[in-house]
Formats: sequence, structure tokens, C-alpha cells
Amino acid sequence: MNNLARVTQDSWRYLFSPASVAVIGASNTPGSWGNNAMKGLLHTGERRIYPVNPNSAEVLGRKAYRSVVDIPDPVDLAVIVVAEKLVPDVLRECVSKGVKAAVIITSGFGETGEPGRKLEAELAEIARLGGIRIIGPNSMGHADTRTQLSTFGQAGEMPRGPVAVLAQSGNMCLKIVRNLAESGVAFSKYISTGNEADLRMEDYLEYLAKDDDTKIIAAYIEGLRDGRRFFQLAKEITVRKPIVVVKTGGTQESARAVMSHTGALAGTDAVYTAAFKQSGVIRVEDDDELCDVVYALLNSPLPRSNRVGILSIGGGPAAMTTEACEKEGLAIGTLDPSTVSKLDKYLPSRWPRRNPVDMAGPSAAEFSVIADLLWALIEDKNLDFIFLLAPIVMDRALLASRMGLSPEAIKAYREKEEKNMMLIREKVEKYEKPVVMMWQWRSSSSDPDMASLFRKAKVLVCTNTRRAARVLRYLVWYRQYLDAATGK
Amino acid sequence: MNNLARVTQDSWRYLFSPASVAVIGASNTPGSWGNNAMKGLLHTGERRIYPVNPNSAEVLGRKAYRSVVDIPDPVDLAVIVVAEKLVPDVLRECVSKGVKAAVIITSGFGETGEPGRKLEAELAEIARLGGIRIIGPNSMGHADTRTQLSTFGQAGEMPRGPVAVLAQSGNMCLKIVRNLAESGVAFSKYISTGNEADLRMEDYLEYLAKDDDTKIIAAYIEGLRDGRRFFQLAKEITVRKPIVVVKTGGTQESARAVMSHTGALAGTDAVYTAAFKQSGVIRVEDDDELCDVVYALLNSPLPRSNRVGILSIGGGPAAMTTEACEKEGLAIGTLDPSTVSKLDKYLPSRWPRRNPVDMAGPSAAEFSVIADLLWALIEDKNLDFIFLLAPIVMDRALLASRMGLSPEAIKAYREKEEKNMMLIREKVEKYEKPVVMMWQWRSSSSDPDMASLFRKAKVLVCTNTRRAARVLRYLVWYRQYLDAATGK
Repeated sequence: MNNLARVTQDSWRYLFSPASVAVIGASNTPGSWGNNAMKGLLHTGERRIYPVNPNSAEVLGRKAYRSVVDIPDPVDLAVIVVAEKLVPDVLRECVSKGVKAAVIITSGFGETGEPGRKLEAELAEIARLGGIRIIGPNSMGHADTRTQLSTFGQAGEMPRGPVAVLAQSGNMCLKIVRNLAESGVAFSKYISTGNEADLRMEDYLEYLAKDDDTKIIAAYIEGLRDGRRFFQLAKEITVRKPIVVVKTGGTQESARAVMSHTGALAGTDAVYTAAFKQSGVIRVEDDDELCDVVYALLNSPLPRSNRVGILSIGGGPAAMTTEACEKEGLAIGTLDPSTVSKLDKYLPSRWPRRNPVDMAGPSAAEFSVIADLLWALIEDKNLDFIFLLAPIVMDRALLASRMGLSPEAIKAYREKEEKNMMLIREKVEKYEKPVVMMWQWRSSSSDPDMASLFRKAKVLVCTNTRRAARVLRYLVWYRQYLDAATGK
Repeated sequence: MNNLARVTQDSWRYLFSPASVAVIGASNTPGSWGNNAMKGLLHTGERRIYPVNPNSAEVLGRKAYRSVVDIPDPVDLAVIVVAEKLVPDVLRECVSKGVKAAVIITSGFGETGEPGRKLEAELAEIARLGGIRIIGPNSMGHADTRTQLSTFGQAGEMPRGPVAVLAQSGNMCLKIVRNLAESGVAFSKYISTGNEADLRMEDYLEYLAKDDDTKIIAAYIEGLRDGRRFFQLAKEITVRKPIVVVKTGGTQESARAVMSHTGALAGTDAVYTAAFKQSGVIRVEDDDELCDVVYALLNSPLPRSNRVGILSIGGGPAAMTTEACEKEGLAIGTLDPSTVSKLDKYLPSRWPRRNPVDMAGPSAAEFSVIADLLWALIEDKNLDFIFLLAPIVMDRALLASRMGLSPEAIKAYREKEEKNMMLIREKVEKYEKPVVMMWQWRSSSSDPDMASLFRKAKVLVCTNTRRAARVLRYLVWYRQYLDAATGK
């Protein structure tokens, strides 16, 4: 892969672990880009930060410089937020100062038509000749949790984690990061790649392939500048690290929207679809699916095939789930006769002896019984994963309100539940069969205490069946791709 | 419609406003059906409640009777939870006692095969000859908020509201009710219809048509016993009251699951689809969509056609939304030239002068600017509804954390926002154009304070674009059905 590298490790080091950063266009005006970027840099990590603003003596309490060239110390990274017409000159000053890398937040370039395209080409040329590498223009920033660097303007400690996000939209980047963070996912790096005048999606991908902090790569793509290289790299990477992608611009008006957003050519959707498939990239429909799949990759084994077992507290949810699974291309597994015999011991004689398994009422709604039924399904060789529509843990609100338990009793109950859930984890891991818990109520699913319990147990959670079925279908596809690619 | 009525108003009165209720199979065992039903009845409304249990002297502090015939006072309604084999005799006793109506919670009838079907037919015959009307068997209960009657076993005051829910699954009934309640929706009645040995979906529908408390009917259907009558009724009702339906059993295995759940024949899906369409019934894919559509019918005007206008804080979300809308069959409206001129006043010169309208950054992210842009789109005759991807209200968490506002300042800010939002409501209602707010973060959407603000403003909220696009498509379809049906 090294032969392809367009970017040196030194350049990446200046981008992700700069010893000093200049914010060109730093401002005291709250809400402005130049103010946000300063705040973010001052509040994350520890490095030298230099505001540049010819009209202020100081910004946020730091001495401000008229130009980057006036800064007395070396500058590794520049964050540029000045008006678009000024960017080429500012970038030239960076070159003469010896700045190694720049993040250009300013927009108004290739995405706006011919004059903007020319201006953007000028930036690329300055960078090439000057040996400075650029993120953007029209980027919203980049972040590295190992070095606690963020040019996004967020403040505060960033937890380290295994997921990298690359996005040709700053808003989508932050949306994905924040929604995953709400599910307890943490990140290695995330980058709003902008118009990619210099550094492109393909360069970042190549870097992340070798980045030990990154175990999963998630990307929002509008159009690839060098598709051939992307897919070549992806094919090498996906056998070791999953790549999950949402690619927009596949319809007429969205392709136009993409062009006026980052100046990218969306390309023919069918070509992208085929290339993603061939290179083992999990392509999903939208950022919600992207978050679901990334979460599942982190918190569940990959199922061998698409045969679902359904264990339900009642017939209605069982029927709805069955239909949703069939509509999404999953197979309703046929129970092995030995499983039917096992289940006979626990279920009333009227149970239909087939999948979906309808427990027919809450008489069996205790952990011990649900668990025994669940073990039987997990162990069935005809099933690859299980949808669980039964209260294997108690709704927290119900524990307090309906059952009237004291805080101590609730604590004891939770500890028992936690132990029980670890039993599920053992089975899930041993048999490599995901278990998906379908919440009856939307509100339960937003309880962080419950979410953490399920995460520990390696049980996926979901409120919408079709959405869950789609996630499983992606996981099955990826497992089968891996098995074929690695000759299993 | 009166000619068709199979059920007298008296029978409905006994079912929904009984002066006295016997719980046959009442129990002191927590978690049992007989215990839940008693608790629910004791905690909702005020009426005479008689537990029947030959093995207990009292249940939940009330004197228990050996048989319903031993109760000294008249009994209007019986809730039956005894084992299935005992139900026919219990029902005969109810007839001899003069009980007018019964809810049979017990399952194990038509859904289990031939012996169960015979037992169920026996119940229907006893009811017919004895003049007693039955909900169920295999029902989970029924509830009327006007009379504060619930046989579901929930406790507590039930707020009154305009939505009725009919469901051939108790679990789905409660799921729909609870999820809608979480969005602030309240109910007139909700009924788990069970196996419909006597009273059927069609009877309930006929009743709700004339029920002044009910403005919208939502139904979960597995199979209709009398489809012809259902669609005849529906056609008369939908021009006045919307009917929203989720119908399962449309795939091979789900049809089987339905049969072993309530003994219903799912029928051919294409036939159902055509019949729903012809009778103006809004048929949705699952219960989540059902909740979304019911919510939208209550909280938004119906759009005239399918041309969407998109106002976005950034290009990425704009492109994603555009694609999702196109994929779901909505049209991306062409901005009227007068709208482009209006928007020119507020947007940077580089804006692409087309729909989707990309505000290109947070410099315009203030209510006044967003509002002016929004008014321009609402007033555009080429657009039928607006997707708003911009922070027209401030995320509550941000107000406190990032902006560091005091509780008093937050209160003042909210009051200003509330006023602003009422301006939106005016426009939405005047132009009959729904506005859908798409949340950037999942967590914001679960803030009840925000939800209530948007509800007041008649602004719909959503986190997933495709889901929102589908809801709008249903609304457009219904509006166009109504216009055609009423000759507009």
C-alpha cells in the first residue's frame, strides 16, 4: 500500500499532533467560526495556540498577531477562517512562515461555480508548491482524541475509542459523531473533509488503514475524486477493519445538491453500489443506519447467515416482526425438532411449535423462563441470530412505579439482572449469534442505565423491527464477504 | 349505516359504562391476569367491582364470591380470566345472572387449532342465545377514558383525547397507546379485540363512527372476518374521520404467525391494499408509522400535493434529505423566481438559488433569519410543505451548558421562542402547509419541553428523513383522496 501513499507520515503528524496552532481569523465575536475554533482549541488538549487577527490586540485573552508571519515561534498547523478572497494570500503567508498543515474552514470555493473552482485550484497549487497539506476548504474541522486536538470548536475532553469518521459534510460528521456518542461509542479521529482541494477521502482512508487506534471506519461520501484508488484501498482494508459508508447523491436532485455543496460529482449510483460490494464496504441507506451498523459491529458478533429466530411475549409483535424480517430479506428459520422438544417443557401446550415462538402471555415472563427459551433458540443450528421481544430486563420506570420497589430493592434487582445478562453474553459470544432486544416502548430504549446494561451483555437493542432487520442483513452480508475473501 | 348495525347502543353502554363489574378469576397473586384486572378496575373510575373466586374469601380487600350468580347486585360487565376449559360454563352463569357483556381475557381458543375453534364457537353460541356481547376471547382488555374504565390492568387516571385504537393484538394495542401517549396524544377508547368470537373489528368501527369522542381511528389488523362490511363502513367514515391501519400477515410466515395468534385468516395482501385505498384508509407499514401518521393528523394540516421545500443549515443534511425525499416518491419543488429574490436578501451571494435551500453555515442561524427564509418557502406556491433542517429553537442542553445561561435567562429565552413558534403556527395554518423539523441530534428530540413547544406550534418533528418523508406521502395521499371523494 505504501507505493500509493501521497501523504508523508510527517504531514499527518503535523495535522493530528501539532505542537502549535495558529487560528487565522480568530475572533472575539461569540458564535463566529473564528471564535468557536479558538474556544475549541483552548479547551481541548495542551499546545501553543496563536490567534491571528489584524484588528484585535487579543482574542480570548491571548495576544493576537497581525499575520501568521509575525508569530515569533514555529507554527505546525493553521486553522483558516478568513473570507474566501483572502484565503490564497493567507495560505501563501503560511508557506513562507513554514506552517506544515492547514485546515481551511472558509467556504465559497468549488461548490459555488466557476470563479470558486479557480480560487480552489489556486489553493491546491499553493499547497503543492509550498509543501503544506490542506484539509478543506469548506471543512468544519478535524479531531484526534489521542492528542486531544479539535478544530471543530467543541470544548471538553474527548474520550478515546475505536471508530474513525470521515465525512464530506461537517454537519453530517458532527451528527454521526454525536449520535454514536449518545450510544456510548467513542472515536479515534473524525474529519470533515470539505471540498478536498488537497487531502482527499482516499488519503484519509489510507492513513486510517495503518492507524492502530482505528478499528472501524465510518464515512459519509458525496462523491469520490479518485474512486479507483478508494476501492483498491477499501478492498485491502475491509478484510481487517470494517468500512461503513453512506453515499448520497444517488438521485437526480440530490446529485445537484451535492454539486452545490462540496463541488463533488455524485457519479452513477449503480457503479458505486457494485464497487462498494466488490471491495467489502458496507453501504447503508442513511446516517441512522450507519450509526446502527457501527454500533452493532462494536457490540455484537457477526452472524453466519440470515436465518432469524423470534422469541415473543405475544402473537401480535411476533407477526409484525416476522413480516418485517421477510420484507427485509431475512429467512424465518425452521426450528430443529430438538428445539421444539426443549421449548415444550416451558410453554403451554397450545404453543404453535414453530418459529416465531410466541410465549403467549406474561406467565412465562421471568428471566429464568425467558432465558431457558432463549438458550434453546441460540443453540438451534438452524438459527443464526435471535430477535427477542420479551422483557428479559425490567423497565426501570415500572420497577419504581408499578412494583413499588425501594431504591435498595431496585439496586439488588439490577445486580441480579446484570449477572443474568452476563449469561446471555456468554452464549452470544460462544455461538457467535447476535441477540437483538426489541423494545415494546420507545421510552425504555432511551434509558442510559438500560443501554449500558445491554451493551455489557452484547445484546443489541432496537425499537423498530425493519430497522433492526436491515442492520442484521448488513452484518450477514459482511460476514459472508469476509468468509469468501479469507477463504473460510 | 344503521341498517347494518349488529350491536345495540345498550350493549355498547354496558361494555363502556358499566355500573358494576365482576372479575371472574380474580386473584391475589401479583402479576396474574386476575390480579392485574382487579387492580386496574379498582384504580380507574368509580363503580361497583366484584371479585369472583371460589377459593378465596377476599381479593384485594374485597369480598370474593364463589360464582357470579352469588353476587347480590346486578352485574353489567364480566371480565373473565379463568382457564379456557371453564370459560363456557362461566359464560353460561353470566347469562343466567343477567350479565350484559363480557371481556374474555383467557386465550387457548381458535388460535390453537380445531379443539380450540370448537370451544370458541361454543362461546359465540352461548353469547348469541343468551344475549350477552363478548370482547375476545384472547383479548387483553378494553378502555374508555370518558368513563375511566379499563380492563387492561393499568392503574391511574387516563386523560381524554380524540384517538381510538382497535387492535387484534393486546400487545400491539398497548404499544401503540403508550408510544402515542409519550408524544402527548390522548385517547377516547382502546380495545384489544382478540379472536373476535362475537364482537368484531367491523362492529367496533361502526360504533366509533358515531362516537363523538373519537376523531381519528387507528387499527392494528391481522385479518378481517367481514372484509366487505369493513370497507363499506370505512368508505363512509374516512370522509369525516381518518382511519389509519397497520395490517400484518402479508408475507408467508407472518400469515402463519397470524393464524396461530388470533386464528385470523390474513388473506391476500394485494386485495387488502386495493380495498384500503378505495375506501380512503391510510394503510401504513408498521406501528411506528401508524403513530407518526396519527400524530401528524392531529398536529398538522394536510398538504395539497407532494412538492417539498427543504431549508437546511448545511449542504450535507440538505443532500441526504433530498435523496430520501426522492426515494420516497416526493417531488423536490422548483422555487418560484419571486422566492429566489426574497431569499437573495438573506443568503450569501454564493447560495445555489435552488431547492434545497442551503443556508451555508450558522451565520444565518438566528430565529429572525431562519424565520424569514421559512416564510418565503411557506408562501411559495410551488411548495406544499417544508422540511426544516435548521435550529429554529435552541437545544435545551446547549442553552445551559455551551451558552452558560442562568435558569432565569433560559426561561426568558424560552418565552421568546414560544412567541416565535406561534408565528410559525399562524403561517402553517394559513397556508395549510406542514412544517417538519428534522433534529440534528437524536437526544434533542426526546426532550419533552421541546416536544410540547413544537406541538403548540403545529410543527412536526422527526429524526429520520425517510420516515418523515413517508409520513408526508401518507398525508398527501389522504388529502388527495378527500379532495376527490368530496368533489373538491
